[in-house]
Amino acid sequence: MTIAYDGTDFAGFQSQQSQRTVQGELERVLKKVTGESVIVYGAGRTDAGVHAKGQVVHFTSEAMIPLEKWVWVLNHMLPRDLAALVAEEVHESFHARYHACWKRYRYEIDTGRVPDVFTRRYRTRLAGELDILKMQEAAHHLLGTHDFTTLSSAKSTKKNRVRTLYQCDVESTATGVFITTAGDGFLYNMVRIMAGLLVQVGRGSLTPKQIPEIIASRDRGRIGKTLPPEGLTMVEVSYQPWE
Amino acid sequence: MTIAYDGTDFAGFQSQQSQRTVQGELERVLKKVTGESVIVYGAGRTDAGVHAKGQVVHFTSEAMIPLEKWVWVLNHMLPRDLAALVAEEVHESFHARYHACWKRYRYEIDTGRVPDVFTRRYRTRLAGELDILKMQEAAHHLLGTHDFTTLSSAKSTKKNRVRTLYQCDVESTATGVFITTAGDGFLYNMVRIMAGLLVQVGRGSLTPKQIPEIIASRDRGRIGKTLPPEGLTMVEVSYQPWE
Repeated sequence: MTIAYDGTDFAGFQSQQSQRTVQGELERVLKKVTGESVIVYGAGRTDAGVHAKGQVVHFTSEAMIPLEKWVWVLNHMLPRDLAALVAEEVHESFHARYHACWKRYRYEIDTGRVPDVFTRRYRTRLAGELDILKMQEAAHHLLGTHDFTTLSSAKSTKKNRVRTLYQCDVESTATGVFITTAGDGFLYNMVRIMAGLLVQVGRGSLTPKQIPEIIASRDRGRIGKTLPPEGLTMVEVSYQPWE
Repeated sequence: MTIAYDGTDFAGFQSQQSQRTVQGELERVLKKVTGESVIVYGAGRTDAGVHAKGQVVHFTSEAMIPLEKWVWVLNHMLPRDLAALVAEEVHESFHARYHACWKRYRYEIDTGRVPDVFTRRYRTRLAGELDILKMQEAAHHLLGTHDFTTLSSAKSTKKNRVRTLYQCDVESTATGVFITTAGDGFLYNMVRIMAGLLVQVGRGSLTPKQIPEIIASRDRGRIGKTLPPEGLTMVEVSYQPWE
């Protein structure tokens, strides 16, 4: 299933004892609907406060619900900050996380003259001008295959930190700056650290030309802080067409 | 000042004992900023849960804050669901409510195939198809000067219920239906009752041709229920150019 959620009031995707999580709410509703103790697997374990417009989950159920009814049935039971968008039948070997080819995330920054109260849950408010051309030049240096240790959280336990970015776009409008990135995988907090790095460039505290050397240094200490979760949305997960 | 707010977590505009209101939050922040006990007057006393993109308020202050700094100073102190947009100096006789020529409201309905988690705080979710052409025809009958008792809450204490509507537009997109209306004044709950009436037409339980007679009957009992507040936003308040 493809699902969407407003992450503001969730303690992240993954089930945690006595916390409200996306996985927990989905499993609670699936239990009511099917009578089965279903386990839900997500393509990405988004953090507390991070949103999704196109998270993908898989689960196994023997309930006799026609495929075209699943979305409707779940949306009648799910809380208002979590919705089912599309249901598809997949091969029993399908895994939402292991079989994902790439994922796309978007980081939205509210840079308007005044804060926007209506998008505040989905954008990070940063006052001051950002130099978009410099951010675009810096983003270009992040494309391709690199060891992204510089952009990984100190909490990351992954040994292999080589990832490939297919997209890293920076766009700007009158009210915001939007960073869209797609890759074969992202380390813990990587998109939020990357957005913070691009903001440093936009503010002039780093130059685009420094980026390749900073990435090559594999030193998380070289760059600034992780931006907050509210600006981040998981937009899309892509699979091979036969999956 | 022109202000915006997400009404979800406010018990309406007007100050009420021990409730969180827009007026209360503004007066609290103005007290901190100016040291004065300022009273804030709004163009419209929006209900609990109703939003504003262009509410206008006036107040008197002797604080030595330059006009161009007011918005910035207040936005640093205001909660994230309330923002100052524009500050203007006005004649001391100016009154945000009594001098308003007209106000514009918008009622947004989420009619998408699946509920939209990101606009759920600002749109009312109504499942099922709405006949937009019929709603537009019905809206046309509401334009002009009428006694709007039929569209006023039973709680309304106003004796004179004659109002003039300058605009009543119904638009539709793939995900929603939007009703925009402007008038010289609106009775208590009038926009939400009007939106409910147009939805009845859109669903076929009333025909557009019945509208003139229903309005003329001045009988609130002739039509359905008031739609919930979350779909309603005060969009604009207009004054004479010399005010």
